[in-house]
Amino acid sequence: MKETTMYEIGHLINGETSLQGKAKQDIYNPSTGQADGQVWLAGETEVADAIAAAERAFPAWRNTEPVKRARIIQQFKVLLEANADRIVELIGQEHGKISHDALGELKRGIENVEYAGYVPELLKGEYSKNAGPGIDTWSEMQPLGVVAGITPFNFPAMVPLWMYPMAIACGNTFVLKPSEQDPASALFIAQLALEAGLPEGVLNVVNGDKDAVGQLLTDDRVKAVSFVGSTPIAKSIYSTANAHGKRCQALGGAKNHAIVLPDADMDNASSALIGAAFGSSGERCMAISVAVAVGDECADRLVAELQTKMKDLKVGAYSNPDNDFGPLISKAHHEKVSAYVDGAETQGAVVVVDGRQASDPQYPDGYYFGGTLLDRVTTGMTCYQEEIFGPVLCIVRCPTLDDAMALIDDHIYGNGTCLFTRDGEAARYFSDRIQVGMVGINVPLPVPIASHSFGGWKQSLFGDLSAYGPDAVRFYTQRKTITQRWPSSSVREGASFSFPS
Amino acid sequence: MKETTMYEIGHLINGETSLQGKAKQDIYNPSTGQADGQVWLAGETEVADAIAAAERAFPAWRNTEPVKRARIIQQFKVLLEANADRIVELIGQEHGKISHDALGELKRGIENVEYAGYVPELLKGEYSKNAGPGIDTWSEMQPLGVVAGITPFNFPAMVPLWMYPMAIACGNTFVLKPSEQDPASALFIAQLALEAGLPEGVLNVVNGDKDAVGQLLTDDRVKAVSFVGSTPIAKSIYSTANAHGKRCQALGGAKNHAIVLPDADMDNASSALIGAAFGSSGERCMAISVAVAVGDECADRLVAELQTKMKDLKVGAYSNPDNDFGPLISKAHHEKVSAYVDGAETQGAVVVVDGRQASDPQYPDGYYFGGTLLDRVTTGMTCYQEEIFGPVLCIVRCPTLDDAMALIDDHIYGNGTCLFTRDGEAARYFSDRIQVGMVGINVPLPVPIASHSFGGWKQSLFGDLSAYGPDAVRFYTQRKTITQRWPSSSVREGASFSFPS
Amino acid sequence: MKETTMYEIGHLINGETSLQGKAKQDIYNPSTGQADGQVWLAGETEVADAIAAAERAFPAWRNTEPVKRARIIQQFKVLLEANADRIVELIGQEHGKISHDALGELKRGIENVEYAGYVPELLKGEYSKNAGPGIDTWSEMQPLGVVAGITPFNFPAMVPLWMYPMAIACGNTFVLKPSEQDPASALFIAQLALEAGLPEGVLNVVNGDKDAVGQLLTDDRVKAVSFVGSTPIAKSIYSTANAHGKRCQALGGAKNHAIVLPDADMDNASSALIGAAFGSSGERCMAISVAVAVGDECADRLVAELQTKMKDLKVGAYSNPDNDFGPLISKAHHEKVSAYVDGAETQGAVVVVDGRQASDPQYPDGYYFGGTLLDRVTTGMTCYQEEIFGPVLCIVRCPTLDDAMALIDDHIYGNGTCLFTRDGEAARYFSDRIQVGMVGINVPLPVPIASHSFGGWKQSLFGDLSAYGPDAVRFYTQRKTITQRWPSSSVREGASFSFPS
Amino acid sequence: MKETTMYEIGHLINGETSLQGKAKQDIYNPSTGQADGQVWLAGETEVADAIAAAERAFPAWRNTEPVKRARIIQQFKVLLEANADRIVELIGQEHGKISHDALGELKRGIENVEYAGYVPELLKGEYSKNAGPGIDTWSEMQPLGVVAGITPFNFPAMVPLWMYPMAIACGNTFVLKPSEQDPASALFIAQLALEAGLPEGVLNVVNGDKDAVGQLLTDDRVKAVSFVGSTPIAKSIYSTANAHGKRCQALGGAKNHAIVLPDADMDNASSALIGAAFGSSGERCMAISVAVAVGDECADRLVAELQTKMKDLKVGAYSNPDNDFGPLISKAHHEKVSAYVDGAETQGAVVVVDGRQASDPQYPDGYYFGGTLLDRVTTGMTCYQEEIFGPVLCIVRCPTLDDAMALIDDHIYGNGTCLFTRDGEAARYFSDRIQVGMVGINVPLPVPIASHSFGGWKQSLFGDLSAYGPDAVRFYTQRKTITQRWPSSSVREGASFSFPS
Repeated sequence: MKETTMYEIGHLINGETSLQGKAKQDIYNPSTGQADGQVWLAGETEVADAIAAAERAFPAWRNTEPVKRARIIQQFKVLLEANADRIVELIGQEHGKISHDALGELKRGIENVEYAGYVPELLKGEYSKNAGPGIDTWSEMQPLGVVAGITPFNFPAMVPLWMYPMAIACGNTFVLKPSEQDPASALFIAQLALEAGLPEGVLNVVNGDKDAVGQLLTDDRVKAVSFVGSTPIAKSIYSTANAHGKRCQALGGAKNHAIVLPDADMDNASSALIGAAFGSSGERCMAISVAVAVGDECADRLVAELQTKMKDLKVGAYSNPDNDFGPLISKAHHEKVSAYVDGAETQGAVVVVDGRQASDPQYPDGYYFGGTLLDRVTTGMTCYQEEIFGPVLCIVRCPTLDDAMALIDDHIYGNGTCLFTRDGEAARYFSDRIQVGMVGINVPLPVPIASHSFGGWKQSLFGDLSAYGPDAVRFYTQRKTITQRWPSSSVREGASFSFPS
Repeated sequence: MKETTMYEIGHLINGETSLQGKAKQDIYNPSTGQADGQVWLAGETEVADAIAAAERAFPAWRNTEPVKRARIIQQFKVLLEANADRIVELIGQEHGKISHDALGELKRGIENVEYAGYVPELLKGEYSKNAGPGIDTWSEMQPLGVVAGITPFNFPAMVPLWMYPMAIACGNTFVLKPSEQDPASALFIAQLALEAGLPEGVLNVVNGDKDAVGQLLTDDRVKAVSFVGSTPIAKSIYSTANAHGKRCQALGGAKNHAIVLPDADMDNASSALIGAAFGSSGERCMAISVAVAVGDECADRLVAELQTKMKDLKVGAYSNPDNDFGPLISKAHHEKVSAYVDGAETQGAVVVVDGRQASDPQYPDGYYFGGTLLDRVTTGMTCYQEEIFGPVLCIVRCPTLDDAMALIDDHIYGNGTCLFTRDGEAARYFSDRIQVGMVGINVPLPVPIASHSFGGWKQSLFGDLSAYGPDAVRFYTQRKTITQRWPSSSVREGASFSFPS
Repeated sequence: MKETTMYEIGHLINGETSLQGKAKQDIYNPSTGQADGQVWLAGETEVADAIAAAERAFPAWRNTEPVKRARIIQQFKVLLEANADRIVELIGQEHGKISHDALGELKRGIENVEYAGYVPELLKGEYSKNAGPGIDTWSEMQPLGVVAGITPFNFPAMVPLWMYPMAIACGNTFVLKPSEQDPASALFIAQLALEAGLPEGVLNVVNGDKDAVGQLLTDDRVKAVSFVGSTPIAKSIYSTANAHGKRCQALGGAKNHAIVLPDADMDNASSALIGAAFGSSGERCMAISVAVAVGDECADRLVAELQTKMKDLKVGAYSNPDNDFGPLISKAHHEKVSAYVDGAETQGAVVVVDGRQASDPQYPDGYYFGGTLLDRVTTGMTCYQEEIFGPVLCIVRCPTLDDAMALIDDHIYGNGTCLFTRDGEAARYFSDRIQVGMVGINVPLPVPIASHSFGGWKQSLFGDLSAYGPDAVRFYTQRKTITQRWPSSSVREGASFSFPS
Repeated sequence: MKETTMYEIGHLINGETSLQGKAKQDIYNPSTGQADGQVWLAGETEVADAIAAAERAFPAWRNTEPVKRARIIQQFKVLLEANADRIVELIGQEHGKISHDALGELKRGIENVEYAGYVPELLKGEYSKNAGPGIDTWSEMQPLGVVAGITPFNFPAMVPLWMYPMAIACGNTFVLKPSEQDPASALFIAQLALEAGLPEGVLNVVNGDKDAVGQLLTDDRVKAVSFVGSTPIAKSIYSTANAHGKRCQALGGAKNHAIVLPDADMDNASSALIGAAFGSSGERCMAISVAVAVGDECADRLVAELQTKMKDLKVGAYSNPDNDFGPLISKAHHEKVSAYVDGAETQGAVVVVDGRQASDPQYPDGYYFGGTLLDRVTTGMTCYQEEIFGPVLCIVRCPTLDDAMALIDDHIYGNGTCLFTRDGEAARYFSDRIQVGMVGINVPLPVPIASHSFGGWKQSLFGDLSAYGPDAVRFYTQRKTITQRWPSSSVREGASFSFPS
């Protein structure tokens, strides 16, 4: 971790970096607890300028052939790979992720860039010859215009890449508002996109707070909004955007359960759970935060395996690649996670492994929280009901698979879930019935690959269409259906073209 | 038209007809101006019963194989064709459409039933082998649960058939609330659907007023709402449904312009416009209500042709198949349409053909309004700005195609539009740029066929997904993505299955 | 079974029944061994007439809208259901299948008719807006012209329905040559297709022998040939058709193995195997004729279960619905099957259950052959290497799944196969690697549903595209790609349309 | 053009360059008429080694995730762009194309590489949940194994890129046999593919003559063959490959007609025709070699415009970028083209512009042939009936569009065609009815973009599936359909997992 003088993060508007706004706000390095930089919060002018730039860029971009748009996206991918080290460092510095984890995030983001590069295939409309007598009908999926994206702190590089590569590949122009807690990587990446050949104004980044968000949601020129964050905000974003005539997809929180059946490969399951529960300090909307063991014997085996394996877990600064995971994002969040564990203890959970006292000796002010295992958690406990967003895994015990599934279906969230088993029938029974959008069978983080779409059910997603993949193409385009008939033709049927007799 | 004693229309809940509710309301025969029947307005109990019935029916219906669901839908189509005469009569009686027009409506509805019968093909998910090492990923498009549909008076048979056949084919159960102005055909048709084999509770019909609508929009058990009506109501339905956690698509009003270029086949264009402007008394959201002629010479020729051809238009009671179109839906609506024409005259439009005094001598109390042609209409006039929903065609004159297109793009609606020309370049220029969802080239009513989707842009549709066709499949299903890996296999790799040595 | 005077089966050419040809041949009732009817074998004239009729019908049929063609196909389905009893009787009489089996065959055929009815969806081309600057490109899947189908005796109703409903729905016209051993049901069904509304000449049937086949394969007007039969004939048909400029798909023989793992649900597996091995007397290209048990203990359990359950098997005349299966198709075939069992015994197989002496006391001349179970079959035996096409199940014993799979991959056929297990990993390992086109997991006859396609690998299918389902759409159409650009437009850009200044 | 010592071209087998074979053959530089290099003709050993290498590489490559295969293809694209200058030089040297034309060829090839990079999307199977009760069915498009490609001299870089990028992306391994007349660019490009990350043996190149071709067509390990060349060879390749159990697509010759209607933008049409007729010396299977003018007045205008514009045409050595096109491929071919023009003159055609005496003063031995315009060509002339494959444009005069279309439909080829018009109806009439696979409207070389497929009709293509685009995915994969049901589950239903009571 190199010493830096206080750096400044601004906006990217119409192809220009802009260091101005209504105020500046500190950016903390969670590994040290120090504020190393500052981010400019966009005022009304900056947001308006970004939208205006995007609007100006739209007509020419819309008319650019899909294959040419795709080539810029493909070149963007090349630049992302070439600059991976720099991006990983920026993520680590501001978010606290260890390099292997940050690189994993970036790779997932690049996958979405790749998929957006397939857009000449993805934008194909459907053509019906002879829809009626002499009538043909076809569909064109046209871009919407200016689209906005509002993204969370926990995947500062990946989540923006879920959104704008596809939005732009479809012919839209874009305004991104990243999290003000870790804005550097998103801004750097956007600059690479321009370098890859995006014309001025096609992609703009504004940093800001909720005023900027509010302005994006209410400006008539913005036609659609993609959001990822917590459920209460997602809900509010969704209704505000809709009330202002925009289409919106807003992804919220989660409480992902894994179920472990007695026939599971327990070594595999426990290793998988440790990665899924504690990776990135549990600050993932696809983290497994509850493991439901079916049968007490299975639960005992599972807890024992976890307890043993958790001894090897290393928490510490992002700059040490030997660490398994880094600090939480902020002091405030650290206090919140601690309070959940304290509450769980009070409410009767057994703290099998306690991460509350974790620290990195080199960085005593970092926001470190160790992997925590809570056994005998019940549905009445706060640690069960709410999303903790920290490295805390709750064990719930259930007599049957049906009971375990009922737990999941009774929860307000429906983002991800996983079943550990070797049994084909159990896998199908579970995946068919469970009220969750993304289901893993022996895959603890069933984040769909880029050619499928990401979306939870229930309070985990507001909107009809999921993020990225095929649904994103539909979200970022509007359907136009053309019905065409040609009447009499003077040139074809006319006598004047006959040879003179 | 046969004499009838006062008939009663109730509800269809859990397979049973129910004649009860909070009140009864008269149903008028617009051709005679007489109230011939009464409709029961559902109270809270009836609506709740319908929803409960649909919810009970859901689990078994969801698990029924798509091919079996499709067969019931296919059988439903057979019954619709066998009962066409009866349906046409019911539509005519309550709505006033002439039989040829009512039959046209029914046929369009049947097309949507046919398309819903393709559901084994339409529900296919996408399967990615080796999404990761030893990992497969696929998508299942699962039904939502209970879905509601709220439909308008102007297509009492067709619009419900846009909705529930596909919703049901996808595995949902349904509660339909038809227009209380002409509820008989929708109820009769729903009974045919049950007769075709739908299990009890899969399709329910409640008649009612805005209280019933409100209840459908706020009950948690209803997961999605499809609506067709006017724009202010569509907007309100959309935001209420969203606020209550439902997905919603709400189709609103229109002001569809046709543009006539000087090279158009004028005989064909003028005939097409007469059908599109006056058919069904202009009470269609796809009716052409404005014709924009490019160039004064073109305008003069167009007006002359229209004036001549309009002399043959016959308005009168639905029961006479020689009539071209029938009465307006109600006395109140007749007054409203008259007021638009009066206003246009006052604001300077030239009333070339005046339909205000139309009548059917046999039925002096019918709500007849003749085909009306207004020339030299300008964008400042109320008759131009608002949707009249009557047999009134406004002529606007423009110097160039670009000017004509600007008119359309400046209007708040974006449902349908049409260009009359013989020129390939003009057609492409227009269809590419115009901000309208459904575009006709020499096709005045570019209602997409059932294998495409119906949806306007701007204030004509609230929601991401269009009605019927491929978009309806996406609207009535939620995406579930399964990611599967199988760990060690004791049965395959185990030594115990070797021959003893 | 009713007494009939000798009936005559002819051709269906241009909508007319034709009783003529180069000769007549007896049709035997395999349940009685009596010749009850005669079939006319088409001479050169009849075949030429059928092709000519199809060619004449093509231009108008090709231009008929897909939705209208689909409606005739849908009506055809209604008539097939209404006439199921009659069809089942015709199949039974000439082929010997028991009514439940014949009805099963018919239902599978009707599924393919249903799928062909989806053709407005299936024929959609792909539309690429802005393929280049101002250039659009789209594909149209156009019909080929006259298509021929040549079908086998073992599914006299179903296999023709794999072919012509889709070929015709795609806009082609058709000449069918059914098996001359049991031609009645195919002819009757074709008459229903005409009754459903097919114009004259769109579907023609010629009965005949290999001369008729040869003529169909060499006439230039025939553009494509679908064939189902034995492998040597399939291979010859394929090369002859190709040499005469036709596209061809030719399905041949099979030797379908099921593998039983020790963890299988043995009750379920053994019941499934009995149905799959002996149903329709094993005269199915998807019949299981080899069961490979993994491990001797598993083999012993399997043989014991099969032996017990086979005691209840009833073989007898088609007219008794209590029978499980009926006679073989002919005396000659009976002798051939007997010889295979004799040879197996000689070569060292253990005849656990012997069906060679089976008979129906009421019909001593029927071609009955009882369910036969051969244990300890090895790959060197003729009964293992060749397709028996009779009710004979061979048991092979293997130490591991890999050994069992190697057996399958070493065989020349690759039509269908099945694995019995409860283990998810074993299922995926098997289905991924096995060199067979249709794979069942606990499904012994993995005949794909109509919305998927039917096709084996290796010597079981010659051609790129499988039968029915999506591949059939591709097979029965030729791709046309249109690339369109519009140059200057006098009407849009011309000054003459401006207002005079 | 730099002086070179005699260079040697060998093979690329299992990742190694191999300079050996049964003999060497001279490679001529058509611009100078000098032999500058030599190519090794593979003997039996080299071909067998290449096939063996491909077969060894197959199992691991097949199991590599599609997304990883796609990434190598994407990297291949990056390398192709980086090495464009070198490739263009190699093409020019051996084929004679001017650099702008060679670059155009390369870009078209790169488009196909791009499309192959979309393979994670293109390989998706179809998944049908509940195909039956508790039964799921899905399709997997599995690779075939070793695939061979045999490519022509006229597009030495592009045509190989139509084939192996997609074949390999689909999981196959490949043996390419390029034209021995200009093998250098194909070999160089293949080396880039290895550099991009293809494992050894996945892509192999053997140079050779017809013995090598014969060996590829008859070796059992080769599962499919793609060919582009002349029609007689295509036909023979197709039947030989089929007879040896391979799937095959074989593209042959063409005689592409453009029709000019009197309303066409004549300036645009004549310029387009000059490019399409003379570009690459007419050595393109999509070249326009016949222009049919409708009406004598139209013909006179067209001939006049062409004659004027042809004055500016510059033919000469590939090394001068000011030249419009270069020499023919060989001395023998030059003589053949000359003979066609001589014959035309004898048979009565008017030689409006005569290119027979063209030369490049700097390279008197080059095979130059100037743009040639023949008017009043009739269908009886040899120059009309046969493919000349030189810079010769024939003008045919017709009274009506229908007559012009009849000419095209009567020709044995059906590769490409084009209509010049402004009229929407004429365009649709033509594109719907014409018996040609690739149709341009005002686009003289309607080569489909990479996301569509390339294929002619009639004698221009043997096989069901077109080259590149979606059809190539189907051609290079075999369909496997899995039908899965899970029986009883001990782990899910078993009592042993309940809490002890």
